[in-house]
Amino acid sequence: MFLALAGGVGGAKLATGLANILPGADLTVVVNTGDDFEHLGLHISPDIDTVMYNLAGIHNRATGWGVQGETWHFMRALKALGGETWFQLGDRDLATHVERTRRLKSGESLSAITSDFCRALGIPCSVVPMSDDRVRTIVHTDRGALAFQDYFVRLRCEPRVLRIECEGAERARMSAGLEAALNHTRLQAVVICPSNPFLSVAPILAISAVRASLRSRGVPVIAVSPIVGGQAVKGPAGKILKELGQEVSCIGIARYYQGMIDTLVIDDADRSLAPSIDALGIEPVITDTIMRETSDKERLAKLIMALASKKSSAVTPECPGTTPTPQDWRAPRDS
Amino acid sequence: MFLALAGGVGGAKLATGLANILPGADLTVVVNTGDDFEHLGLHISPDIDTVMYNLAGIHNRATGWGVQGETWHFMRALKALGGETWFQLGDRDLATHVERTRRLKSGESLSAITSDFCRALGIPCSVVPMSDDRVRTIVHTDRGALAFQDYFVRLRCEPRVLRIECEGAERARMSAGLEAALNHTRLQAVVICPSNPFLSVAPILAISAVRASLRSRGVPVIAVSPIVGGQAVKGPAGKILKELGQEVSCIGIARYYQGMIDTLVIDDADRSLAPSIDALGIEPVITDTIMRETSDKERLAKLIMALASKKSSAVTPECPGTTPTPQDWRAPRDS
Repeated sequence: MFLALAGGVGGAKLATGLANILPGADLTVVVNTGDDFEHLGLHISPDIDTVMYNLAGIHNRATGWGVQGETWHFMRALKALGGETWFQLGDRDLATHVERTRRLKSGESLSAITSDFCRALGIPCSVVPMSDDRVRTIVHTDRGALAFQDYFVRLRCEPRVLRIECEGAERARMSAGLEAALNHTRLQAVVICPSNPFLSVAPILAISAVRASLRSRGVPVIAVSPIVGGQAVKGPAGKILKELGQEVSCIGIARYYQGMIDTLVIDDADRSLAPSIDALGIEPVITDTIMRETSDKERLAKLIMALASKKSSAVTPECPGTTPTPQDWRAPRDS
Repeated sequence: MFLALAGGVGGAKLATGLANILPGADLTVVVNTGDDFEHLGLHISPDIDTVMYNLAGIHNRATGWGVQGETWHFMRALKALGGETWFQLGDRDLATHVERTRRLKSGESLSAITSDFCRALGIPCSVVPMSDDRVRTIVHTDRGALAFQDYFVRLRCEPRVLRIECEGAERARMSAGLEAALNHTRLQAVVICPSNPFLSVAPILAISAVRASLRSRGVPVIAVSPIVGGQAVKGPAGKILKELGQEVSCIGIARYYQGMIDTLVIDDADRSLAPSIDALGIEPVITDTIMRETSDKERLAKLIMALASKKSSAVTPECPGTTPTPQDWRAPRDS
């Protein structure tokens, strides 16, 4: 059984790879809700939606968010009425927000609603919010403290980041689905997907019970670097690393996760940085991490499964040799 | 200055005729809000929307409700998520409901929001809700008490009506816009549009201050019959008249409004019923009341203006002769 921590697009891609090769019952994807917000009176969960649409295969490949073949009649009509249009809501996507908001207001949990939506969309694995309690990512910048979407969408990540706060995370309880996955006897590894560490993964890890469980559980934690060749594959991770005085490289990512992860999967392009990661006590694993096609997602997922098997065999010597050994993921270039 | 009481399609058509021939400042259309309801967490004001879309010229001519050229991507996506789909919400129409709901929740009044929407849509006259307080039409039927939209849309007016209740009307205050129009020194006539008397007009008249103002004000009240040739032009007015034990004819309408109106405009088809209406103390005026084209709406509006002028001259003999005399609206068939 695998638990994947995911945020936006990169997380959604690797989650899709894992979902394609694992039985539904063997994968739980826990999703950041720190960038959830209320807009036009609707509860919007951008990362849950990105993960859900990707897993359902209805995601918009061009934008990274929203639904494929989307239409914009609602937005145009809203503009004509003088409404706020800085956050784009497609006609199909809107159904998710309206129905979620209705159900939340009737007292249902985000977990229950997400579970039902995923079932309706034919997603076999579990997708769970990190918490059913309110956590909000606040970006402290040179233009003041900004709600996440104000920073991310309205201001297009332009302000300089001073620090990032996960408001409410310390007292938030993890969701029942996350807790069940973390405590599952068959849990083989925790996968930190190549999502933005500060904006997508940090809010999940900011829940104190999550950090404590990860430490006490002792299963391998395998991360995939979202920084390749000195820049983010997508989004502002590189810019934020720099603004926070960190190295914009997979070494910066390794330092950020130091003490939390056992393995960091880095891209072929960053092969030369492997020794520095190793020096931080984190095993570097080199492969092509860019996920363009479904086959890329599945190949990366298989590598992670193999790594987990190897790690599990190593830490539980009482049941060795039954799991397949990983292919040589450093080959061919590393040989 | 004219004040028109309107509900759905028939009211919206005559309101359009009046709006086309009167300066914007000389027309206030007060709209029924008794069939407003909350659906999917959205505040929906069906009659305000019908009037607004008609006055803006963006109404759907085929359905009578909603926007022309509407698309249904939201509804299909909602269905896929397991949401409720018995009340159709088009992609464009949805902008009205989402933005209205957001602004209501932020503490703005339905009057202020409606006024802004109408300005944004280029509507020159005033459109005001009958009240900013909550009034809800409850239809007591052989299947129990039903919220209006349950009766009207979900159950397609199938249950037999026993009585109709305007919950909250007695203690509702009329909206400031309605009050201003009713008390305006230049108010020349009140027009009761050919909307359903029970479902669209009754809730407005159920506000006690409206009834009192109409009585004390003493301006002519001119109604247009929504029943033509023994049946409703559109909707369930005929069925309801019958179920309430009334005659399904413009005589039933005259009896319903007796004591409230001075004049009832009836259709050529009901010419033979004019003496019975006259016998009720209501002046019958005969014309073609079916409004297919814009020219029909404007012709009916002009007739009403002429009637109002005639009545005003009659009741205010101190300023006679300055208003145009009405054309002979009984000609040519009556001559």
